Amino acid sequence: MSTIKYPTAISPVNLSQSSTTYSQRGMSLESDINDSNKYYRACDIALIYKKPTPIQVVRVDYPARNKAKIVEAYYKTPSTTDYNGVYRGCYIDFEAKETKNKTGFPKMMIHDHQIEHLEKVKLHKGIGFFIIRFSYYHQTFLVDAPLLIKEYHQTTKSFIPYKWFLENGQLIKEGLRPRLAYLKEVDAKYFKED
Amino acid sequence: MSTIKYPTAISPVNLSQSSTTYSQRGMSLESDINDSNKYYRACDIALIYKKPTPIQVVRVDYPARNKAKIVEAYYKTPSTTDYNGVYRGCYIDFEAKETKNKTGFPKMMIHDHQIEHLEKVKLHKGIGFFIIRFSYYHQTFLVDAPLLIKEYHQTTKSFIPYKWFLENGQLIKEGLRPRLAYLKEVDAKYFKED
Repeated sequence: MSTIKYPTAISPVNLSQSSTTYSQRGMSLESDINDSNKYYRACDIALIYKKPTPIQVVRVDYPARNKAKIVEAYYKTPSTTDYNGVYRGCYIDFEAKETKNKTGFPKMMIHDHQIEHLEKVKLHKGIGFFIIRFSYYHQTFLVDAPLLIKEYHQTTKSFIPYKWFLENGQLIKEGLRPRLAYLKEVDAKYFKED
Repeated sequence: MSTIKYPTAISPVNLSQSSTTYSQRGMSLESDINDSNKYYRACDIALIYKKPTPIQVVRVDYPARNKAKIVEAYYKTPSTTDYNGVYRGCYIDFEAKETKNKTGFPKMMIHDHQIEHLEKVKLHKGIGFFIIRFSYYHQTFLVDAPLLIKEYHQTTKSFIPYKWFLENGQLIKEGLRPRLAYLKEVDAKYFKED
């Protein structure tokens, strides 16, 4: 019987499972939100879209008269968050992040431009929040942006504890239609008086 | 003396002037609006951005470890308008168009997805409008989206007369800071009671 020697202590099965899961999950929060937004739009509940990724186009070829093929381009750093739109007459703006971490959410996953932008959203009386998924627990939280930003600045640690989200976030119900009923949590958090 | 025969009746000088002017003007409304939005953001008056152009990325090369170079990509048809954001707590959404036409604005310059999107903006109690520039007259109008869409559907002609804009649009004041004071017209049109 022969056994294959791998260069690291991690078994190949775990490694493969882990990276597959990671990439699937990395995509799944985004696709869950996109699906939910599609549902909300179809039912005329809200009008919220993911913004396109900003790309700097350098060179375009025209292989046919009406066809433009971009052959050189680069990703640009966005200046805003990923999602915005209108719900119940209010401006909605949020960023979505997913972590595999069990103990907390790494602060480095939130970028300066996102914090600055969400602070401006608050200033202009829009509703700004984060959707944070802890994939290990299969839990997705809606967290008020000013609240999370305050914690971000106050803590000296490099992550915000999972426990903090249990206490300060709103757990988003998952289902089929919509996949992520995050507007229910927007109702609960921002439209309490109704 | 020899003269060069050109294939069309258009003189080369006119052709060249015409296309230069066209391309400059085609860019200038967009850059005027981007400049104005930058000013409005810097003064904390409004938080309005142009959305990135949606691009379908097909192939990416990594010439260096941290550098992604897009080598095959295509422009996608947007599903929304070009600009959105928040002003005085309200959701703002608009599309900007520029024409060289003297007699009217060609209906074909407005696309179905823009009409559908702006109708939804109205439904969700957002503020939706068009910014239409008649470059021949050096005039830029703000026109309420529902009003322009109504005229778009009612008229059997292929364009909406310039005169219609004089009667139904709000002429936007141009200056240095901001280049296009279009939020003044938003105030006049949508915040009359203040």
